[in-house]
Amino acid sequence: MRVCGIDCGTETTGYGVVEWDDRDRNPHLVSLGSGGICPPKKALLPERLSLIYTELIALFERYQPEIVAVEEVFYSVNARSAIRLGHVRGVALLAAATAGLPIAEYAPLTIKSTVTGYGMAAKNQVQFMVARLLCLPSAPEPTDAADALAIAICHIHHAQTLSLQEARAV
Amino acid sequence: MRVCGIDCGTETTGYGVVEWDDRDRNPHLVSLGSGGICPPKKALLPERLSLIYTELIALFERYQPEIVAVEEVFYSVNARSAIRLGHVRGVALLAAATAGLPIAEYAPLTIKSTVTGYGMAAKNQVQFMVARLLCLPSAPEPTDAADALAIAICHIHHAQTLSLQEARAV
Repeated sequence: MRVCGIDCGTETTGYGVVEWDDRDRNPHLVSLGSGGICPPKKALLPERLSLIYTELIALFERYQPEIVAVEEVFYSVNARSAIRLGHVRGVALLAAATAGLPIAEYAPLTIKSTVTGYGMAAKNQVQFMVARLLCLPSAPEPTDAADALAIAICHIHHAQTLSLQEARAV
Repeated sequence: MRVCGIDCGTETTGYGVVEWDDRDRNPHLVSLGSGGICPPKKALLPERLSLIYTELIALFERYQPEIVAVEEVFYSVNARSAIRLGHVRGVALLAAATAGLPIAEYAPLTIKSTVTGYGMAAKNQVQFMVARLLCLPSAPEPTDAADALAIAICHIHHAQTLSLQEARAV
């Protein structure tokens, strides 16, 4: 299973592609690539959105994920931040739809809890655990990339639990 | 000058294309087309956004506007509504950028004030005045289409004022 996690942000949109490799006796998670899409700060909003869209489409083409995972919208932010985040999130969802990819959504609490065991974990705890789970030599940078990898890991974990439950139900 | 006004909405996204025709002695505003893009309510959000994007790209192709005009974001709505509106607005801005069209933004108060003379005008007053200004036999439906036409009229009005000011300054 190959998942592309996307952490939408108004300044940086993180992405992280994770594969669950179960071909040998020791199944494990592999990071295929991660990073941040950072449109120039001086660019106008439509240009910034256009760049995010184009880069996401190129990423889907390069990594061929089976599914895209994003954070559920959270409503604690103010309306001004929410609409700005909404612009990027809308474009990310559109990119996935254009590429014909299904989308899974997870609450921030679920993502942190899956990766660190604690729903209110700090950013650096998420970075640390993502590096551990993916056997990376250092914490992924920027933190948006670590968050995107965490979203992808969260989806793999939940998909496995679901398939185990289904297998038991048969 | 040909302008496409877009009134972004989570249920219906209105559009209205207005031309300022000054070829004869009696220059006037002409509505070339207007309507609402209403994705099926049962469709998933990415599908809805994809439909809005595709329809907007097709509209730009059909009407060949020189510029797109939208409402400025307003921050009085709550965060939940704001992020939902942001999704659609992001996709609309992306469609304009993809079509290579510049974007003008106007505050809701400016739009209502330009069309009706009163910044706090009700929806039906905007509909009534849009029909009058465009010499339409009846009020445009849905109201989202009337709002989109009002945004386009607002841009034409402001562009004319600007060009008059520039002409005087020479």
